Amino acid sequence: MKSYRKELWFDIPTRRAFINITPQVTACLAESGIKEGMVLCNAMHISASVFINDDESGLHHDFEIWLEKLAPEKPYSQYQHNGYEDNADAHLKRTIMGREVVVAVTNGKLDVGPWEQIFYGEFDGKRRKRVLIKIIGE
Amino acid sequence: MKSYRKELWFDIPTRRAFINITPQVTACLAESGIKEGMVLCNAMHISASVFINDDESGLHHDFEIWLEKLAPEKPYSQYQHNGYEDNADAHLKRTIMGREVVVAVTNGKLDVGPWEQIFYGEFDGKRRKRVLIKIIGE
Amino acid sequence: MKSYRKELWFDIPTRRAFINITPQVTACLAESGIKEGMVLCNAMHISASVFINDDESGLHHDFEIWLEKLAPEKPYSQYQHNGYEDNADAHLKRTIMGREVVVAVTNGKLDVGPWEQIFYGEFDGKRRKRVLIKIIGE
Repeated sequence: MKSYRKELWFDIPTRRAFINITPQVTACLAESGIKEGMVLCNAMHISASVFINDDESGLHHDFEIWLEKLAPEKPYSQYQHNGYEDNADAHLKRTIMGREVVVAVTNGKLDVGPWEQIFYGEFDGKRRKRVLIKIIGE
Repeated sequence: MKSYRKELWFDIPTRRAFINITPQVTACLAESGIKEGMVLCNAMHISASVFINDDESGLHHDFEIWLEKLAPEKPYSQYQHNGYEDNADAHLKRTIMGREVVVAVTNGKLDVGPWEQIFYGEFDGKRRKRVLIKIIGE
Repeated sequence: MKSYRKELWFDIPTRRAFINITPQVTACLAESGIKEGMVLCNAMHISASVFINDDESGLHHDFEIWLEKLAPEKPYSQYQHNGYEDNADAHLKRTIMGREVVVAVTNGKLDVGPWEQIFYGEFDGKRRKRVLIKIIGE
């Protein structure tokens, strides 16, 4: 069994953003030389997400509005977590969007549907944060 | 390491439905000959889900009502994604239900709890869509 | 390829609780002798969750309030599932929190970010329930 590991680093200038990381994950897979197996792609921070959805700006706008409705950022005082911090909503938003994705590797390619794109979801940005890519297989 | 891949195809006549795919996943595992490892089972479409829960019709009714409350289908105009499409709510509903499950394989069996059943969750049906089964192990 | 399997058992005296199981998962990994691979950690019950987030009591309080807002326990009669049972809300809450996590193994360690902790989320306690730890790799 082969294994491969890489960290992707981000420093998002806004509090929230969605970044398409499919090209980086594809490059990692090529570098790994693994032909059959699985890719784990996870946020290493608990106020961020890795998820799969459509790369369509209207939908990303809808996600922003929707997440704010389900887990509003303000007032900060509504959350006990916000004693020394103000990011409780980011923990909740990331819970809805998910920490990780696992993607199949077949014939050396990411085995995904035609519209599946992998995103980094930032919910508490303005600092350096990272995503782990781990690939196992042969 | 062995690997196995299969696509399951669906053509659901309604917009939304939950289909128990545990028998198909079990059959794939038997066909693979893999005794120890992991099964990845994911929707290949971003308006559908694979998830694990109870095969109980009352609960499925509750899921339908609940998802409509959290991410209503209508009015279509509430979502920017709905310019050329009307399925923004399907993207949101699938986000709550999840894209994928990973299930352990032990002694050649799906290693699941007594009530765990694997479902395909369709949120934008009336067309052909598919699920990927990828199994790795030995 | 090596594989390892263990069940963690819980008997939570309250209906809901969050239990940090990172020490148990770390011990399983050491016992497995696996240096490179992946850990699957999943609830074997459909009214419980395994998820990764912060071990901070204020945040756990916020999760409790938030989950009750999104999927209230009462009135029980609001859910069709609650014919013979009263735990429909537990199935919905666990759906938001997630069934499972997959964590990378690198150099014999759980390859997680500095604040990532693995939790068992109980939403229908007062009885014996379990979590599966499955590790594959080399």
